[in-house]
Amino acid sequence: MIKVVLLGTGSVSKHLFAAIQSSSNARIVQVFGRSETGLISYKENSTTTSDPNKIKDADIYIIAVSDDSINFVCQLLKDKNGLVVHTSGSMDISTLLPVKRKGVFYPLQTFSKNRSLDLQEVPFCLETELPEDYPLLEQLAKEISSTTYLVNSEQRKQLHLAAVYANNFTNHFYFLAENICKDAELPFAILQPLILESAKKLEQITPFDAQTGPARRGDKKSLKSLSNLIQDTLQKDIFADITKSIERTYDQKL
Amino acid sequence: MIKVVLLGTGSVSKHLFAAIQSSSNARIVQVFGRSETGLISYKENSTTTSDPNKIKDADIYIIAVSDDSINFVCQLLKDKNGLVVHTSGSMDISTLLPVKRKGVFYPLQTFSKNRSLDLQEVPFCLETELPEDYPLLEQLAKEISSTTYLVNSEQRKQLHLAAVYANNFTNHFYFLAENICKDAELPFAILQPLILESAKKLEQITPFDAQTGPARRGDKKSLKSLSNLIQDTLQKDIFADITKSIERTYDQKL
Repeated sequence: MIKVVLLGTGSVSKHLFAAIQSSSNARIVQVFGRSETGLISYKENSTTTSDPNKIKDADIYIIAVSDDSINFVCQLLKDKNGLVVHTSGSMDISTLLPVKRKGVFYPLQTFSKNRSLDLQEVPFCLETELPEDYPLLEQLAKEISSTTYLVNSEQRKQLHLAAVYANNFTNHFYFLAENICKDAELPFAILQPLILESAKKLEQITPFDAQTGPARRGDKKSLKSLSNLIQDTLQKDIFADITKSIERTYDQKL
Repeated sequence: MIKVVLLGTGSVSKHLFAAIQSSSNARIVQVFGRSETGLISYKENSTTTSDPNKIKDADIYIIAVSDDSINFVCQLLKDKNGLVVHTSGSMDISTLLPVKRKGVFYPLQTFSKNRSLDLQEVPFCLETELPEDYPLLEQLAKEISSTTYLVNSEQRKQLHLAAVYANNFTNHFYFLAENICKDAELPFAILQPLILESAKKLEQITPFDAQTGPARRGDKKSLKSLSNLIQDTLQKDIFADITKSIERTYDQKL
Protein backbone atom coordinates (compact mmCIF):
# COMPACT_ATOMS: atom_id res chain seq x y z
CA MET A 1 0.00 0.00 0.00
CA ILE A 2 1.46 3.38 -1.04
CA LYS A 3 0.78 5.95 1.68
CA VAL A 4 0.14 9.44 0.34
CA VAL A 5 -0.20 12.84 2.00
CA LEU A 6 -2.01 15.33 -0.21
CA LEU A 7 -1.24 19.04 0.22
CA GLY A 8 -3.72 21.53 -1.23
CA THR A 9 -7.48 21.58 -1.58
CA GLY A 10 -8.18 22.91 -5.10
CA SER A 11 -9.55 21.27 -8.18
CA VAL A 12 -6.55 19.02 -8.96
CA SER A 13 -6.39 17.94 -5.32
CA LYS A 14 -10.08 16.95 -5.37
CA HIS A 15 -9.67 14.83 -8.48
CA LEU A 16 -6.53 13.12 -7.18
CA PHE A 17 -8.14 12.48 -3.82
CA ALA A 18 -11.15 10.73 -5.31
CA ALA A 19 -9.02 8.64 -7.66
CA ILE A 20 -6.44 7.57 -5.09
CA GLN A 21 -9.07 6.75 -2.45
CA SER A 22 -10.79 4.42 -4.87
CA SER A 23 -7.56 2.76 -6.05
CA SER A 24 -6.52 -0.67 -4.84
CA ASN A 25 -2.96 -0.10 -3.72
CA ALA A 26 -2.66 3.50 -2.63
CA ARG A 27 -4.28 5.47 0.16
CA ILE A 28 -4.36 9.12 1.20
CA VAL A 29 -3.49 9.07 4.88
CA GLN A 30 -3.91 12.82 5.34
CA VAL A 31 -4.90 16.01 3.55
CA PHE A 32 -3.10 19.21 4.48
CA GLY A 33 -4.70 22.57 3.75
CA ARG A 34 -3.74 26.03 4.89
CA SER A 35 -7.35 26.89 5.67
CA GLU A 36 -9.84 24.77 7.59
CA THR A 37 -12.62 25.69 5.13
CA GLY A 38 -10.85 24.00 2.23
CA LEU A 39 -10.55 20.79 4.23
CA ILE A 40 -14.24 20.32 5.02
CA SER A 41 -15.08 18.17 1.99
CA TYR A 42 -12.17 15.78 2.75
CA LYS A 43 -12.95 15.13 6.41
CA GLU A 44 -15.43 12.38 5.77
CA ASN A 45 -12.98 10.14 3.92
CA SER A 46 -9.59 11.03 5.39
CA THR A 47 -7.63 12.64 8.19
CA THR A 48 -6.98 16.33 7.64
CA THR A 49 -4.80 19.00 9.18
CA SER A 50 -3.95 22.65 8.76
CA ASP A 51 -1.06 22.47 11.20
CA PRO A 52 2.33 22.22 9.39
CA ASN A 53 3.81 20.47 12.42
CA LYS A 54 1.30 17.64 12.26
CA ILE A 55 1.96 16.44 8.72
CA LYS A 56 2.16 12.65 8.84
CA ASP A 57 4.89 10.43 7.44
CA ALA A 58 4.13 9.00 4.00
CA ASP A 59 5.72 7.36 0.97
CA ILE A 60 4.70 10.21 -1.32
CA TYR A 61 3.71 13.83 -0.65
CA ILE A 62 1.69 15.36 -3.47
CA ILE A 63 1.75 19.16 -3.54
CA ALA A 64 -1.36 20.19 -5.47
CA VAL A 65 -1.34 23.96 -5.03
CA SER A 66 -0.96 26.97 -7.34
CA ASP A 67 2.49 27.49 -8.87
CA ASP A 68 3.23 30.44 -6.62
CA SER A 69 2.58 28.45 -3.45
CA ILE A 70 4.71 25.39 -4.24
CA ASN A 71 7.77 27.04 -2.77
CA PHE A 72 6.04 27.79 0.51
CA VAL A 73 4.47 24.35 0.87
CA CYS A 74 7.61 22.38 0.10
CA GLN A 75 9.41 24.20 2.92
CA LEU A 76 7.09 22.37 5.30
CA LEU A 77 8.38 19.03 3.99
CA LYS A 78 12.11 19.57 4.11
CA ASP A 79 12.65 17.11 6.94
CA LYS A 80 10.48 14.36 5.45
CA ASN A 81 12.02 11.22 4.00
CA GLY A 82 9.26 10.45 1.50
CA LEU A 83 9.18 11.46 -2.15
CA VAL A 84 7.79 14.98 -2.62
CA VAL A 85 6.14 15.78 -5.96
CA HIS A 86 4.37 18.80 -7.38
CA THR A 87 1.58 18.67 -9.98
CA SER A 88 2.45 21.71 -12.07
CA GLY A 89 2.96 21.78 -15.83
CA SER A 90 5.19 24.80 -15.78
CA MET A 91 7.42 24.57 -12.68
CA ASP A 92 10.85 23.00 -12.82
CA ILE A 93 11.55 20.04 -10.56
CA SER A 94 14.20 22.20 -8.85
CA THR A 95 11.42 24.35 -7.39
CA LEU A 96 11.30 21.65 -4.74
CA LEU A 97 14.85 22.58 -3.68
CA PRO A 98 14.59 22.09 0.11
CA VAL A 99 13.21 18.56 -0.01
CA LYS A 100 15.34 15.44 -0.14
CA ARG A 101 13.61 13.38 -2.82
CA LYS A 102 11.98 15.41 -5.61
CA GLY A 103 9.51 14.52 -8.33
CA VAL A 104 6.76 15.77 -10.62
CA PHE A 105 3.31 14.23 -10.99
CA TYR A 106 1.62 16.29 -13.69
CA PRO A 107 -1.81 15.25 -14.95
CA LEU A 108 -2.12 16.74 -18.45
CA GLN A 109 -5.76 17.77 -18.43
CA THR A 110 -8.08 20.72 -17.94
CA PHE A 111 -9.84 20.61 -14.60
CA SER A 112 -13.05 22.56 -14.15
CA LYS A 113 -15.44 22.91 -11.28
CA ASN A 114 -18.77 21.20 -11.93
CA ARG A 115 -17.25 18.78 -14.41
CA SER A 116 -16.35 15.29 -13.36
CA LEU A 117 -13.45 13.60 -15.08
CA ASP A 118 -12.15 10.07 -15.33
CA LEU A 119 -8.46 10.22 -14.41
CA GLN A 120 -8.01 6.81 -16.06
CA GLU A 121 -8.01 8.67 -19.38
CA VAL A 122 -5.62 11.39 -18.24
CA PRO A 123 -1.92 11.12 -19.19
CA PHE A 124 0.34 11.53 -16.18
CA CYS A 125 3.71 13.13 -16.86
CA LEU A 126 6.22 11.83 -14.37
CA GLU A 127 9.71 12.89 -13.37
CA THR A 128 11.95 12.11 -10.43
CA GLU A 129 15.31 13.60 -9.58
CA LEU A 130 16.65 10.22 -8.46
CA PRO A 131 16.16 7.41 -10.98
CA GLU A 132 15.50 4.98 -8.12
CA ASP A 133 12.39 6.99 -7.14
CA TYR A 134 10.78 6.60 -10.56
CA PRO A 135 9.25 3.13 -10.10
CA LEU A 136 7.38 4.22 -6.95
CA LEU A 137 5.91 7.30 -8.65
CA GLU A 138 4.99 5.29 -11.72
CA GLN A 139 3.31 2.70 -9.53
CA LEU A 140 1.16 5.39 -7.93
CA ALA A 141 0.27 6.88 -11.33
CA LYS A 142 -0.69 3.50 -12.71
CA GLU A 143 -3.08 3.04 -9.80
CA ILE A 144 -5.20 5.89 -11.13
CA SER A 145 -4.43 6.28 -14.84
CA SER A 146 -3.89 4.07 -17.84
CA THR A 147 -1.24 6.32 -19.42
CA THR A 148 1.97 7.54 -17.90
CA TYR A 149 4.91 9.25 -19.58
CA LEU A 150 8.42 10.04 -18.42
CA VAL A 151 8.68 13.77 -19.15
CA ASN A 152 11.63 15.80 -17.94
CA SER A 153 11.35 19.44 -16.84
CA GLU A 154 12.57 20.80 -20.18
CA GLN A 155 10.04 18.72 -22.11
CA ARG A 156 7.31 19.60 -19.64
CA LYS A 157 7.76 23.32 -20.30
CA GLN A 158 7.27 22.68 -24.02
CA LEU A 159 4.33 20.42 -23.32
CA HIS A 160 2.75 23.11 -21.21
CA LEU A 161 3.05 25.54 -24.13
CA ALA A 162 1.50 22.93 -26.42
CA ALA A 163 -1.35 22.52 -23.94
CA VAL A 164 -1.93 26.28 -23.92
CA TYR A 165 -2.50 26.10 -27.68
CA ALA A 166 -4.50 22.87 -27.58
CA ASN A 167 -6.76 23.89 -24.72
CA ASN A 168 -6.61 27.52 -23.52
CA PHE A 169 -6.41 29.15 -26.92
CA THR A 170 -8.88 26.83 -28.63
CA ASN A 171 -11.31 27.38 -25.76
CA HIS A 172 -11.02 31.12 -26.26
CA PHE A 173 -11.95 30.58 -29.89
CA TYR A 174 -14.99 28.59 -28.80
CA PHE A 175 -15.86 31.64 -26.72
CA LEU A 176 -15.42 34.02 -29.67
CA ALA A 177 -17.48 31.68 -31.85
CA GLU A 178 -20.22 31.61 -29.22
CA ASN A 179 -20.29 35.42 -29.19
CA ILE A 180 -20.66 35.53 -32.96
CA CYS A 181 -23.59 33.10 -32.69
CA LYS A 182 -25.21 35.27 -30.03
CA ASP A 183 -24.91 38.35 -32.23
CA ALA A 184 -26.50 36.42 -35.09
CA GLU A 185 -29.26 35.17 -32.78
CA LEU A 186 -28.25 31.54 -33.25
CA PRO A 187 -27.83 29.04 -30.41
CA PHE A 188 -24.29 27.88 -29.57
CA ALA A 189 -25.62 24.31 -29.83
CA ILE A 190 -25.47 24.67 -33.61
CA LEU A 191 -21.65 24.67 -33.39
CA GLN A 192 -21.17 21.88 -30.89
CA PRO A 193 -21.15 18.93 -33.31
CA LEU A 194 -18.49 20.76 -35.36
CA ILE A 195 -16.37 21.41 -32.28
CA LEU A 196 -16.60 17.80 -31.15
CA GLU A 197 -15.83 16.40 -34.60
CA SER A 198 -12.82 18.74 -34.95
CA ALA A 199 -11.34 17.15 -31.85
CA LYS A 200 -12.42 13.59 -32.57
CA LYS A 201 -11.09 13.41 -36.11
CA LEU A 202 -7.56 13.64 -34.73
CA GLU A 203 -7.95 10.04 -33.64
CA GLN A 204 -7.73 9.14 -37.32
CA ILE A 205 -5.92 11.93 -39.14
CA THR A 206 -3.16 14.40 -38.32
CA PRO A 207 -3.94 18.09 -37.73
CA PHE A 208 -1.98 18.83 -40.89
CA ASP A 209 -4.34 16.68 -42.97
CA ALA A 210 -7.43 17.70 -41.00
CA GLN A 211 -7.08 21.38 -41.88
CA THR A 212 -9.95 22.75 -43.95
CA GLY A 213 -11.29 26.24 -44.61
CA PRO A 214 -10.54 29.28 -46.74
CA ALA A 215 -6.97 29.85 -45.49
CA ARG A 216 -6.06 26.26 -46.30
CA ARG A 217 -7.57 26.61 -49.79
CA GLY A 218 -5.95 30.01 -50.30
CA ASP A 219 -9.43 31.43 -50.90
CA LYS A 220 -8.67 35.16 -50.61
CA LYS A 221 -12.20 36.22 -51.50
CA SER A 222 -13.82 34.31 -48.62
CA LEU A 223 -11.10 35.45 -46.24
CA LYS A 224 -11.72 39.07 -47.12
CA SER A 225 -15.46 38.85 -46.67
CA LEU A 226 -15.04 36.99 -43.36
CA SER A 227 -12.53 39.53 -42.10
CA ASN A 228 -14.92 42.34 -43.06
CA LEU A 229 -17.43 40.94 -40.59
CA ILE A 230 -14.99 41.58 -37.72
CA GLN A 231 -15.13 45.08 -36.19
CA ASP A 232 -12.68 44.82 -33.30
CA THR A 233 -9.06 45.71 -34.14
CA LEU A 234 -7.48 43.06 -31.91
CA GLN A 235 -9.73 40.33 -33.35
CA LYS A 236 -8.95 41.55 -36.87
CA ASP A 237 -5.21 41.23 -36.14
CA ILE A 238 -5.65 37.74 -34.71
CA PHE A 239 -7.70 36.69 -37.73
CA ALA A 240 -5.09 38.03 -40.14
CA ASP A 241 -2.15 36.46 -38.30
CA ILE A 242 -3.66 32.99 -37.95
CA THR A 243 -4.70 33.11 -41.58
CA LYS A 244 -1.10 33.96 -42.45
CA SER A 245 0.15 31.12 -40.26
CA ILE A 246 -2.15 28.60 -41.98
CA GLU A 247 -1.27 29.85 -45.46
CA ARG A 248 2.41 29.64 -44.62
CA THR A 249 2.02 26.09 -43.34
CA TYR A 250 0.61 24.85 -46.61
CA ASP A 251 2.81 26.92 -48.90
CA GLN A 252 5.89 25.59 -47.22
CA LYS A 253 4.83 22.01 -47.15
CA LEU A 254 2.88 21.35 -50.32
CA MET B 1 -40.55 10.10 -52.29
CA ILE B 2 -38.43 13.26 -52.77
CA LYS B 3 -36.48 12.99 -56.03
CA VAL B 4 -33.04 14.60 -55.85
CA VAL B 5 -30.41 15.37 -58.50
CA LEU B 6 -26.97 15.85 -56.96
CA LEU B 7 -24.48 18.10 -58.77
CA GLY B 8 -20.82 17.79 -57.81
CA THR B 9 -18.61 14.89 -56.81
CA GLY B 10 -16.49 16.17 -53.90
CA SER B 11 -16.47 15.33 -50.23
CA VAL B 12 -19.82 16.96 -49.31
CA SER B 13 -21.47 15.30 -52.32
CA LYS B 14 -20.21 11.87 -51.24
CA HIS B 15 -21.58 12.26 -47.73
CA LEU B 16 -24.95 13.54 -48.94
CA PHE B 17 -25.19 10.78 -51.51
CA ALA B 18 -24.67 8.02 -48.96
CA ALA B 19 -27.10 9.56 -46.49
CA ILE B 20 -29.88 10.25 -48.98
CA GLN B 21 -29.57 6.83 -50.61
CA SER B 22 -30.04 5.16 -47.27
CA SER B 23 -32.97 7.38 -46.23
CA SER B 24 -36.57 6.16 -46.37
CA ASN B 25 -38.30 8.94 -48.27
CA ALA B 26 -35.73 10.53 -50.56
CA ARG B 27 -33.76 9.20 -53.50
CA ILE B 28 -30.94 10.51 -55.68
CA VAL B 29 -32.15 9.93 -59.22
CA GLN B 30 -28.97 11.21 -60.87
CA VAL B 31 -25.52 12.54 -60.10
CA PHE B 32 -24.10 15.20 -62.41
CA GLY B 33 -20.35 15.77 -62.58
CA ARG B 34 -18.29 17.79 -65.00
CA SER B 35 -15.73 15.02 -65.32
CA GLU B 36 -16.43 11.31 -65.89
CA THR B 37 -13.69 10.38 -63.42
CA GLY B 38 -15.50 12.01 -60.53
CA LEU B 39 -18.62 10.02 -61.30
CA ILE B 40 -17.10 6.53 -61.15
CA SER B 41 -17.81 5.89 -57.48
CA TYR B 42 -21.50 6.82 -57.91
CA LYS B 43 -22.28 4.61 -60.90
CA GLU B 44 -23.01 1.53 -58.91
CA ASN B 45 -25.85 3.08 -56.91
CA SER B 46 -27.29 5.76 -59.20
CA THR B 47 -27.59 7.12 -62.72
CA THR B 48 -24.87 9.60 -63.60
CA THR B 49 -24.20 12.11 -66.34
CA SER B 50 -21.64 14.68 -67.36
CA ASP B 51 -23.88 16.09 -70.11
CA PRO B 52 -25.61 19.34 -68.99
CA ASN B 53 -28.41 18.66 -71.46
CA LYS B 54 -29.29 15.34 -69.88
CA ILE B 55 -29.96 16.51 -66.34
CA LYS B 56 -33.17 14.82 -65.17
CA ASP B 57 -36.21 16.46 -63.63
CA ALA B 58 -36.31 16.35 -59.85
CA ASP B 59 -37.95 17.90 -56.80
CA ILE B 60 -34.65 19.23 -55.47
CA TYR B 61 -31.28 19.92 -57.11
CA ILE B 62 -28.39 19.98 -54.68
CA ILE B 63 -25.34 21.87 -55.92
CA ALA B 64 -22.41 20.51 -53.90
CA VAL B 65 -19.45 22.16 -55.60
CA SER B 66 -16.79 24.69 -54.59
CA ASP B 67 -18.01 28.26 -54.00
CA ASP B 68 -16.44 29.50 -57.22
CA SER B 69 -18.28 26.93 -59.34
CA ILE B 70 -21.81 27.46 -57.97
CA ASN B 71 -22.43 30.22 -60.47
CA PHE B 72 -21.47 28.05 -63.41
CA VAL B 73 -23.45 25.02 -62.27
CA CYS B 74 -26.67 26.89 -61.50
CA GLN B 75 -26.71 28.25 -65.05
CA LEU B 76 -27.34 24.66 -66.15
CA LEU B 77 -30.53 24.56 -64.06
CA LYS B 78 -32.17 27.81 -65.08
CA ASP B 79 -35.01 26.08 -66.95
CA LYS B 80 -35.75 23.54 -64.23
CA ASN B 81 -38.89 23.81 -62.13
CA GLY B 82 -37.51 22.06 -59.03
CA LEU B 83 -35.98 23.73 -55.99
CA VAL B 84 -32.24 24.45 -56.48
CA VAL B 85 -30.07 24.64 -53.37
CA HIS B 86 -26.36 25.13 -52.77
CA THR B 87 -24.43 23.72 -49.80
CA SER B 88 -22.07 26.58 -49.05
CA GLY B 89 -21.59 28.31 -45.73
CA SER B 90 -20.41 31.54 -47.24
CA MET B 91 -22.40 32.17 -50.42
CA ASP B 92 -25.55 34.24 -50.42
CA ILE B 93 -28.77 32.63 -51.63
CA SER B 94 -28.81 35.20 -54.44
CA THR B 95 -25.78 33.48 -56.00
CA LEU B 96 -28.40 31.17 -57.49
CA LEU B 97 -29.80 34.14 -59.45
CA PRO B 98 -30.75 32.39 -62.72
CA VAL B 99 -32.85 29.63 -61.15
CA LYS B 100 -36.55 29.92 -60.38
CA ARG B 101 -36.75 28.48 -56.86
CA LYS B 102 -33.68 29.06 -54.68
CA GLY B 103 -32.53 27.59 -51.40
CA VAL B 104 -29.55 26.75 -49.20
CA PHE B 105 -28.81 23.35 -47.68
CA TYR B 106 -25.68 23.88 -45.57
CA PRO B 107 -24.39 21.04 -43.39
CA LEU B 108 -22.37 22.70 -40.64
CA GLN B 109 -19.53 20.25 -40.31
CA THR B 110 -15.93 19.60 -41.34
CA PHE B 111 -15.66 16.97 -44.04
CA SER B 112 -12.38 15.16 -44.53
CA LYS B 113 -11.32 12.40 -46.84
CA ASN B 114 -10.75 9.10 -45.01
CA ARG B 115 -13.06 10.03 -42.19
CA SER B 116 -16.59 8.75 -42.12
CA LEU B 117 -19.23 10.89 -40.51
CA ASP B 118 -22.78 10.34 -39.31
CA LEU B 119 -24.87 13.09 -40.92
CA GLN B 120 -27.59 12.39 -38.32
CA GLU B 121 -25.46 14.41 -35.90
CA VAL B 122 -24.80 17.26 -38.32
CA PRO B 123 -26.91 20.44 -38.05
CA PHE B 124 -28.39 21.44 -41.40
CA CYS B 125 -28.83 25.16 -41.96
CA LEU B 126 -31.75 25.72 -44.29
CA GLU B 127 -33.00 28.71 -46.22
CA THR B 128 -35.44 29.14 -49.12
CA GLU B 129 -36.28 32.28 -51.02
CA LEU B 130 -39.96 31.36 -51.17
CA PRO B 131 -41.49 30.48 -47.79
CA GLU B 132 -43.63 27.80 -49.47
CA ASP B 133 -40.46 25.91 -50.47
CA TYR B 134 -39.23 25.59 -46.89
CA PRO B 135 -41.27 22.55 -45.82
CA LEU B 136 -39.95 20.47 -48.74
CA LEU B 137 -36.31 21.34 -47.95
CA GLU B 138 -36.86 20.70 -44.26
CA GLN B 139 -38.44 17.34 -45.07
CA LEU B 140 -35.34 16.34 -47.06
CA ALA B 141 -33.02 17.50 -44.28
CA LYS B 142 -34.95 15.57 -41.65
CA GLU B 143 -34.54 12.42 -43.73
CA ILE B 144 -30.80 12.54 -43.09
CA SER B 145 -30.24 14.61 -39.95
CA SER B 146 -31.78 15.03 -36.53
CA THR B 147 -31.12 18.78 -36.34
CA THR B 148 -32.20 21.45 -38.77
CA TYR B 149 -32.15 25.22 -38.37
CA LEU B 150 -33.66 28.03 -40.36
CA VAL B 151 -30.65 30.27 -41.02
CA ASN B 152 -30.88 33.22 -43.38
CA SER B 153 -27.98 34.34 -45.58
CA GLU B 154 -26.94 37.12 -43.20
CA GLN B 155 -26.86 34.73 -40.24
CA ARG B 156 -25.09 32.11 -42.29
CA LYS B 157 -22.19 34.46 -43.03
CA GLN B 158 -21.75 35.05 -39.30
CA LEU B 159 -22.08 31.36 -38.63
CA HIS B 160 -19.40 30.63 -41.19
CA LEU B 161 -17.07 33.02 -39.38
CA ALA B 162 -17.90 31.31 -36.08
CA ALA B 163 -17.10 27.96 -37.69
CA VAL B 164 -13.73 29.28 -38.87
CA TYR B 165 -12.86 30.02 -35.24
CA ALA B 166 -14.38 26.82 -33.87
CA ASN B 167 -12.83 24.50 -36.42
CA ASN B 168 -10.22 25.96 -38.80
CA PHE B 169 -8.36 28.06 -36.25
CA THR B 170 -8.56 25.53 -33.44
CA ASN B 171 -7.29 22.84 -35.80
CA HIS B 172 -4.32 25.03 -36.68
CA PHE B 173 -3.57 25.27 -32.97
CA TYR B 174 -3.68 21.49 -32.73
CA PHE B 175 -1.13 21.52 -35.52
CA LEU B 176 1.11 24.02 -33.71
CA ALA B 177 0.76 21.98 -30.52
CA GLU B 178 1.75 18.84 -32.40
CA ASN B 179 4.86 20.59 -33.73
CA ILE B 180 5.87 21.63 -30.23
CA CYS B 181 5.47 18.01 -29.09
CA LYS B 182 7.63 16.81 -31.98
CA ASP B 183 10.37 19.28 -31.07
CA ALA B 184 10.23 18.05 -27.48
CA GLU B 185 10.31 14.42 -28.67
CA LEU B 186 6.91 13.69 -27.18
CA PRO B 187 4.12 11.84 -29.00
CA PHE B 188 1.06 13.88 -30.04
CA ALA B 189 -1.06 11.19 -28.33
CA ILE B 190 -0.13 12.76 -25.00
CA LEU B 191 -2.30 15.79 -25.92
CA GLN B 192 -5.30 13.99 -27.34
CA PRO B 193 -7.24 13.44 -24.11
CA LEU B 194 -6.85 17.16 -23.36
CA ILE B 195 -8.08 18.14 -26.81
CA LEU B 196 -11.09 15.85 -26.56
CA GLU B 197 -12.00 16.99 -23.06
CA SER B 198 -11.71 20.66 -24.10
CA ALA B 199 -14.41 20.04 -26.69
CA LYS B 200 -16.56 17.71 -24.59
CA LYS B 201 -16.77 19.91 -21.52
CA LEU B 202 -18.82 22.41 -23.54
CA GLU B 203 -21.71 19.98 -23.22
CA GLN B 204 -21.87 21.00 -19.58
CA ILE B 205 -20.28 24.42 -19.19
CA THR B 206 -19.97 27.56 -21.32
CA PRO B 207 -16.66 28.48 -23.00
CA PHE B 208 -16.56 31.51 -20.70
CA ASP B 209 -16.60 29.28 -17.61
CA ALA B 210 -14.42 26.59 -19.19
CA GLN B 211 -11.47 28.93 -19.70
CA THR B 212 -8.38 27.97 -17.72
CA GLY B 213 -4.68 28.75 -18.04
CA PRO B 214 -2.24 31.55 -17.26
CA ALA B 215 -4.00 34.29 -19.27
CA ARG B 216 -7.26 33.61 -17.47
CA ARG B 217 -5.48 33.73 -14.11
CA GLY B 218 -3.53 36.85 -15.08
CA ASP B 219 -0.34 34.90 -14.39
CA LYS B 220 2.21 37.20 -16.06
CA LYS B 221 5.20 35.15 -14.95
CA SER B 222 4.01 31.96 -16.64
CA LEU B 223 2.98 33.89 -19.74
CA LYS B 224 6.42 35.41 -20.04
CA SER B 225 8.23 32.12 -19.68
CA LEU B 226 5.87 30.43 -22.19
CA SER B 227 6.30 33.25 -24.68
CA ASN B 228 10.08 32.98 -24.31
CA LEU B 229 9.88 29.43 -25.64
CA ILE B 230 8.50 30.74 -28.96
CA GLN B 231 11.10 31.77 -31.54
CA ASP B 232 9.00 32.63 -34.57
CA THR B 233 7.86 36.29 -34.77
CA LEU B 234 4.43 35.54 -36.22
CA GLN B 235 3.74 32.90 -33.54
CA LYS B 236 4.96 35.32 -30.87
CA ASP B 237 2.48 37.93 -32.11
CA ILE B 238 -0.37 35.42 -32.16
CA PHE B 239 0.48 34.29 -28.64
CA ALA B 240 0.57 37.88 -27.36
CA ASP B 241 -2.68 38.88 -29.06
CA ILE B 242 -4.71 35.88 -27.93
CA THR B 243 -3.36 36.34 -24.42
CA LYS B 244 -4.50 39.96 -24.59
CA SER B 245 -7.91 38.88 -25.86
CA ILE B 246 -8.35 36.39 -23.00
CA GLU B 247 -7.16 38.89 -20.38
CA ARG B 248 -9.54 41.49 -21.76
CA THR B 249 -12.45 39.04 -21.67
CA TYR B 250 -12.05 38.44 -17.97
CA ASP B 251 -11.18 41.99 -17.00
CA GLN B 252 -14.29 43.28 -18.68
CA LYS B 253 -16.63 40.70 -17.33
CA LEU B 254 -15.51 39.88 -13.81
